[in-house]
Amino acid sequence: MSKQCFSPEEIHLGWIGTGVMGGSMCRHLMETGYSVTLYSRTRSKAEPLLAAGAKWADSPRAVAEASHVVFSIVGHPADVREVILGEKGALAGLASGGVLVEMTTSLPSLAVEIAELALEREVIAIDAPVSGGDVGAKNGTLSIMIGGDRPTVESLQPCWDAMGSNWVWQGPAGAGQHTKIVNQTLVAAGMIGVCEALLYAYKAGLNLDSAFKAVATGAAGSWAFSNLGPRIIAGDDAPGFFIEHLIKDLGIVLAEAEALQLKLPGVELARDLYNRAAEAGHGRSGTQALIHALANISGIDWSNRD
Amino acid sequence: MSKQCFSPEEIHLGWIGTGVMGGSMCRHLMETGYSVTLYSRTRSKAEPLLAAGAKWADSPRAVAEASHVVFSIVGHPADVREVILGEKGALAGLASGGVLVEMTTSLPSLAVEIAELALEREVIAIDAPVSGGDVGAKNGTLSIMIGGDRPTVESLQPCWDAMGSNWVWQGPAGAGQHTKIVNQTLVAAGMIGVCEALLYAYKAGLNLDSAFKAVATGAAGSWAFSNLGPRIIAGDDAPGFFIEHLIKDLGIVLAEAEALQLKLPGVELARDLYNRAAEAGHGRSGTQALIHALANISGIDWSNRD
Repeated sequence: MSKQCFSPEEIHLGWIGTGVMGGSMCRHLMETGYSVTLYSRTRSKAEPLLAAGAKWADSPRAVAEASHVVFSIVGHPADVREVILGEKGALAGLASGGVLVEMTTSLPSLAVEIAELALEREVIAIDAPVSGGDVGAKNGTLSIMIGGDRPTVESLQPCWDAMGSNWVWQGPAGAGQHTKIVNQTLVAAGMIGVCEALLYAYKAGLNLDSAFKAVATGAAGSWAFSNLGPRIIAGDDAPGFFIEHLIKDLGIVLAEAEALQLKLPGVELARDLYNRAAEAGHGRSGTQALIHALANISGIDWSNRD
Repeated sequence: MSKQCFSPEEIHLGWIGTGVMGGSMCRHLMETGYSVTLYSRTRSKAEPLLAAGAKWADSPRAVAEASHVVFSIVGHPADVREVILGEKGALAGLASGGVLVEMTTSLPSLAVEIAELALEREVIAIDAPVSGGDVGAKNGTLSIMIGGDRPTVESLQPCWDAMGSNWVWQGPAGAGQHTKIVNQTLVAAGMIGVCEALLYAYKAGLNLDSAFKAVATGAAGSWAFSNLGPRIIAGDDAPGFFIEHLIKDLGIVLAEAEALQLKLPGVELARDLYNRAAEAGHGRSGTQALIHALANISGIDWSNRD
């Protein structure tokens, strides 16, 4: 075949992992017209997609045996290793010429390892982690950060367009994961300032809404302050993105930074503070619940403040 | 007088401090129609305003003797104390019923002290620090954070409108300064994440422009990343806001936080890193030059990177 064309008419897709993110992303591909075979560790989470016409397979390998391009979005790097490289993993099932698209936030070094092992089997592996959270996944407005063979990435355009509103090819295998690390560094370190600013405003006796209004739109402004600041003020810990997931990501950030001989004191501080929040029972709260860890250091109970 | 009306026809203004910020702000008041008497430590900086019709006075006190409402924006809290409370300070020159508007970023406790001493002389003192930098001052688009007697603050609306695009009454004397601390906390701590993210992107071998494009508009986004990130990538240290001024402000933040028994580890880290940048000769660079301090920790020379 002279030019790859990954349109719904040409190929059958595989999907591994139908959690809060993966379920919505897979649905967008199906709505674009792709036929899908899927596997998920917890079959019940896949039921809505199966009811909508997806086929079930009993393992990632069985998914791959039925598909030309296999997408995966699971939990931790260890899960990625199992569903891609394991005995019943997707790589073992893909025919020559197939494509793996791994979308879990995971280690860049693992993405490189997968791409190299894939190449030995004449399979191309792409790393394509996302940002935008459950809302972005649901609305098809994710930002997708992509590493790997560029022509293959561009052939998948209909898939990226179905799932996201902003996708950028970042470089060779691993570059997508590296870019996600850049994103999580900004997210994690930025939240420290947001929480400390609101904590100061509270202790100084300011009206938090007025203070928010004065500073949100200028040089102090950020997505986090505008979107999560009001939740902090309202005492709303509901998750957009779980603290326990950010802690996983920060482990990846700091492991990679260490491998690159790079010191990131802001991320280190963020990791310590998020760990404290998780230890205090906020692992399944949204990242804005970092406020509790910072408040606690000064003996303040943010949930029961005056 | 039953209701104060601080229109250009009713009152004569005083202005103290015609540096990069004060010069532009005073000019906007003059362009709105106010007559102005001014004093500045360095007379040469006042020449353009004098040429435009402002009158010169030889001291803050002399300014106040000629004015109904006196504005000041100088350097450090010690300068504020001198130009307002000193022997030749403005308070000593203001007649009963006058108003002091102190716009320097300074200590909330000093703002409260000034307001109390002013009250003894039947003068009302307002604290009204600003954000938006030299560009905001020049364009009359500052954000103004205001503390003090609310009716007086509202009477000054024509003045706020001349200088800023967003002004919010925050509470009693000192509340304006407290709000500015909230702002600077966000600015200072947020920049750590911006610099660490770009440093990681560089060490990971990413194309910095592509990585920027992928993460700037989502949950990782901020004014600082969008506006100063490109300067960091370009190696442009030109100041919007001097590091040495931010270091002054962070001293105020941490002194006030300590007085409130509040621990702000993110601001502490920011202060240490900005101090390192200043020690390396970046005191008169823009805040984005924080990148040099963070790069240096990992043995990277950001100015001469590959």
